[in-house]
Amino acid sequence: MPHITIAAGGDLRFSALAEQLAESRTVYAVGFDRNLFSSDKIILFDSVMSIPERADVLILPMPVSEDGITLNTPFYRGTLPLSDLTGCVKEGGKVFGGRVSDKVREVFTGCGLEITDYLSREELTVLNAEATAEGAVQIALEEQPRVLMGQRVLILGMGRIAKALIRVLSGFGADVTVAARKYSDLSWARVMGCGAVQLSELADSGALSGAELIFNTVPHIILDENTLKRCRGDVLIIDLASKPGGMDIDAAGRLGLRAVWALGLPGKTAPVSAGRMIGEAIDHMLAENGDGTL
Amino acid sequence: MPHITIAAGGDLRFSALAEQLAESRTVYAVGFDRNLFSSDKIILFDSVMSIPERADVLILPMPVSEDGITLNTPFYRGTLPLSDLTGCVKEGGKVFGGRVSDKVREVFTGCGLEITDYLSREELTVLNAEATAEGAVQIALEEQPRVLMGQRVLILGMGRIAKALIRVLSGFGADVTVAARKYSDLSWARVMGCGAVQLSELADSGALSGAELIFNTVPHIILDENTLKRCRGDVLIIDLASKPGGMDIDAAGRLGLRAVWALGLPGKTAPVSAGRMIGEAIDHMLAENGDGTL
Amino acid sequence: MPHITIAAGGDLRFSALAEQLAESRTVYAVGFDRNLFSSDKIILFDSVMSIPERADVLILPMPVSEDGITLNTPFYRGTLPLSDLTGCVKEGGKVFGGRVSDKVREVFTGCGLEITDYLSREELTVLNAEATAEGAVQIALEEQPRVLMGQRVLILGMGRIAKALIRVLSGFGADVTVAARKYSDLSWARVMGCGAVQLSELADSGALSGAELIFNTVPHIILDENTLKRCRGDVLIIDLASKPGGMDIDAAGRLGLRAVWALGLPGKTAPVSAGRMIGEAIDHMLAENGDGTL
Amino acid sequence: MPHITIAAGGDLRFSALAEQLAESRTVYAVGFDRNLFSSDKIILFDSVMSIPERADVLILPMPVSEDGITLNTPFYRGTLPLSDLTGCVKEGGKVFGGRVSDKVREVFTGCGLEITDYLSREELTVLNAEATAEGAVQIALEEQPRVLMGQRVLILGMGRIAKALIRVLSGFGADVTVAARKYSDLSWARVMGCGAVQLSELADSGALSGAELIFNTVPHIILDENTLKRCRGDVLIIDLASKPGGMDIDAAGRLGLRAVWALGLPGKTAPVSAGRMIGEAIDHMLAENGDGTL
Repeated sequence: MPHITIAAGGDLRFSALAEQLAESRTVYAVGFDRNLFSSDKIILFDSVMSIPERADVLILPMPVSEDGITLNTPFYRGTLPLSDLTGCVKEGGKVFGGRVSDKVREVFTGCGLEITDYLSREELTVLNAEATAEGAVQIALEEQPRVLMGQRVLILGMGRIAKALIRVLSGFGADVTVAARKYSDLSWARVMGCGAVQLSELADSGALSGAELIFNTVPHIILDENTLKRCRGDVLIIDLASKPGGMDIDAAGRLGLRAVWALGLPGKTAPVSAGRMIGEAIDHMLAENGDGTL
Repeated sequence: MPHITIAAGGDLRFSALAEQLAESRTVYAVGFDRNLFSSDKIILFDSVMSIPERADVLILPMPVSEDGITLNTPFYRGTLPLSDLTGCVKEGGKVFGGRVSDKVREVFTGCGLEITDYLSREELTVLNAEATAEGAVQIALEEQPRVLMGQRVLILGMGRIAKALIRVLSGFGADVTVAARKYSDLSWARVMGCGAVQLSELADSGALSGAELIFNTVPHIILDENTLKRCRGDVLIIDLASKPGGMDIDAAGRLGLRAVWALGLPGKTAPVSAGRMIGEAIDHMLAENGDGTL
Repeated sequence: MPHITIAAGGDLRFSALAEQLAESRTVYAVGFDRNLFSSDKIILFDSVMSIPERADVLILPMPVSEDGITLNTPFYRGTLPLSDLTGCVKEGGKVFGGRVSDKVREVFTGCGLEITDYLSREELTVLNAEATAEGAVQIALEEQPRVLMGQRVLILGMGRIAKALIRVLSGFGADVTVAARKYSDLSWARVMGCGAVQLSELADSGALSGAELIFNTVPHIILDENTLKRCRGDVLIIDLASKPGGMDIDAAGRLGLRAVWALGLPGKTAPVSAGRMIGEAIDHMLAENGDGTL
Repeated sequence: MPHITIAAGGDLRFSALAEQLAESRTVYAVGFDRNLFSSDKIILFDSVMSIPERADVLILPMPVSEDGITLNTPFYRGTLPLSDLTGCVKEGGKVFGGRVSDKVREVFTGCGLEITDYLSREELTVLNAEATAEGAVQIALEEQPRVLMGQRVLILGMGRIAKALIRVLSGFGADVTVAARKYSDLSWARVMGCGAVQLSELADSGALSGAELIFNTVPHIILDENTLKRCRGDVLIIDLASKPGGMDIDAAGRLGLRAVWALGLPGKTAPVSAGRMIGEAIDHMLAENGDGTL
């Protein structure tokens, strides 16, 4: 007996994911505009109520909801209350979502449904970092009239995105230096063939004053006004950090520096791959529960 | 006594080159619109006649001229006859241009001036190939909603551009196969960690039918209708070959395949670097003649 | 006032470290044979008792001691009791050692001295993994009459050593597949351009049966007799895992497979670098304590 | 009708090649000691006279002969006159050898046999360069007590071997600079992510005085006494150039520098692969002649 999957809402990643799943099984989609889909295998509904069957698996977007009440549906003109969705899942069915808030969780657990956050899956985080790095390099290529070969690039932080950036930039022959606080991160930089600067010594370093391109991956302000003043006038700064970001954007503006705050990257630059990665992570969770794959 | 350099016409590469040269010496520019320049060190003239001094070095664009009569000035609203330019060079001065036709050559030699084609410089060809590859990868990133990581890429040909593509794509973790005719090129592919397919066996190969992305670098038709029919429906084909190109574009259209004919790449995607590379090549030629640098 | 450093015992890493330190400060060495040193800046003593001054810093080897009583001195013909060493450190001086056992720790704390294990430093672990990977590749080059280019390599596990191996082997153009249990590790493998196989599916995979070279980094038996039977007859297996190792060595022998259990690698293949890395880690610990560097 | 192949003489590459061919066809071998072979498919003869059939293909070693009279048989205790071999080939059969001298050629053409030099095949040269680079890096790993990661490496020349070295060393995270005379070679170095130094400026460069490891690939003396004097005392020099080599070996000795003249590399370090490469090149030549493969 095949699984019934409902894909509800989200951006291009989630319409792409629905299309991929529809290659091999029944997918009911809701919370998307018709013109997002080229496949005719998708069965799209205008409302949750009109879906004819209850689902084994319900896939929700990231974030599931901004307000805890309505589904996040950027590519749908209507509004879908979360509470409608609780009724479309079979008893014992699985609900998956991204960045699940407490309020969202309560909506589902209140109806006896467990909701699992796929963002807790490390394998998704790793692949997402790679996709983010590719998107960030795309921005650098688009925004600069220069080749990356030989370019002096500074990366702030040494997490997964930074490591992915290093691999990609090395292929271009860029001259990469990493600034980080932990000695082990500086070791990683050396091991990956990069220069390494202690974050505390960044402001006075040639790595900062010589950089033609800076990627920030650290989610707190490192590039404050004082630091930004030491940058080249033609530097391009790409901030990949969420929430407050790593740069005093106002100061960058006053100093006339070109800065891009690149949010939601893999969703914008590689939605098909980003959707597939989420699908794989859900597959792994189902497999670990002995529930087969999507 | 410093050299006087005149930069006359061309696209963004040549305005960028003029700006770089103006950092360290007197540059008279002609054949450009005012708003191309942010530097105030450039001395821009509306006509050749108004330039106050004759030059030691005259830098012409690529191609110098489409018709052999007027200068190639895509970013200038007026028209500059080549014959005007012959009068603005000192006796013994040097003239440099790109893709110099016989007709253009005659205009200058007729006035006792030797014109040298910087495109004959191997070092420029090598760097230009790298810049072209970066531009081609930028197009692939922009045109595809997928990551390059793990993507099955086919490269047709194994010249300098192909080698540069391989290095860049390897950084992304793409799965690259090269199709070429010469056994030595297939050896190069293996040595660079790629798959290798004899061009004569391409049509029936999984390298073709599985490719998600194809770069052509061969300047004659390899991707004919019959071959294109074996491609995936969602393939992206980027043709980097000049003149006839390597793909039957009409057939690609009929088959609904996405194809980009990417011409003039480093000039569009990395004009500042492309301009600098031309400047370096001219420097080398001047140095070899004992004429100092630009 | 300069620090007095005593370097006591250990293998070639520790004699190399002593020599490096002696470039810039007073180093008293003990527990080494005379002929280990080419530098005449080292002041070598035959016994702890004859050292004229007490030290600010005492550097002990890894492991500090096999039995908790005598110092580990593989390149010294005599015997040094640990208890002698406690007397050669100033009050408030620092003692550093590697793989410090409880028994060893008690010897020093009983005398009011704190002993710190440099192996707890993540930055050392990272660099050590790189050095281990280089040594492992050296063994592969020595033991095989084949090039690594295009060779099918299987890596078991995806920790730091595996990641370092992937980077090095990619430069050779080897065709690397990783087998690991965690999905996130398989994601890492893909992100680094490798094939990826679930460990539970290894036995029946082409990655195993086709491998010409296998590196094991997992410290429990994965290559049991049943698995080894699926290997090519000409495979080379290099086991980098400590303690029990990851291979049934007896079975490998019965099957006539070539296997190398490569222990103590960076100490044997790159002692100078390995010594320097330990020195850097100690420097970092001293700096964090406000005690200056070695 | 299967081809009869005779493999006559040569080092371990040629015994390995004979063994590979014997997997799929009849191979008569002569000019080797019995204990070179583990395969029982090889049919080994003590003299040419005892071979029962004439061959379609005769494979000779490189060089075919040192004196133009007897076959080059380093792993055979006897002596084989070339003239004996001319009689063991069918009319219209093919003879292949490496580094074929005029004298050798005459022996065969005098008997109506054409001999083709497989070293003229570009695809073999490319693969051979890779194998040489691997062997050279093996020597560096063996001879140095240091890791290659971060090591300052200087490569003299920018031919195929140099390019292969760069790829391999980049995987180790070495810091590579190339010294070459041609500007295009310096462009290649930059494109491959390396530093680049004009050969004429090498002597006064930091690339020379800072190098911990030097690979020479240029077959004339670049490292003369004056240049060697600027090297670090602990440098390792690996000379890969044939004939005179690129280093004043006597001067290196007087200065106490460690130098290795690494000749016959792929034959020593990777004979099985080197033999296979020769076999592939011969296959290509047979295929181009419409003679099938070996």
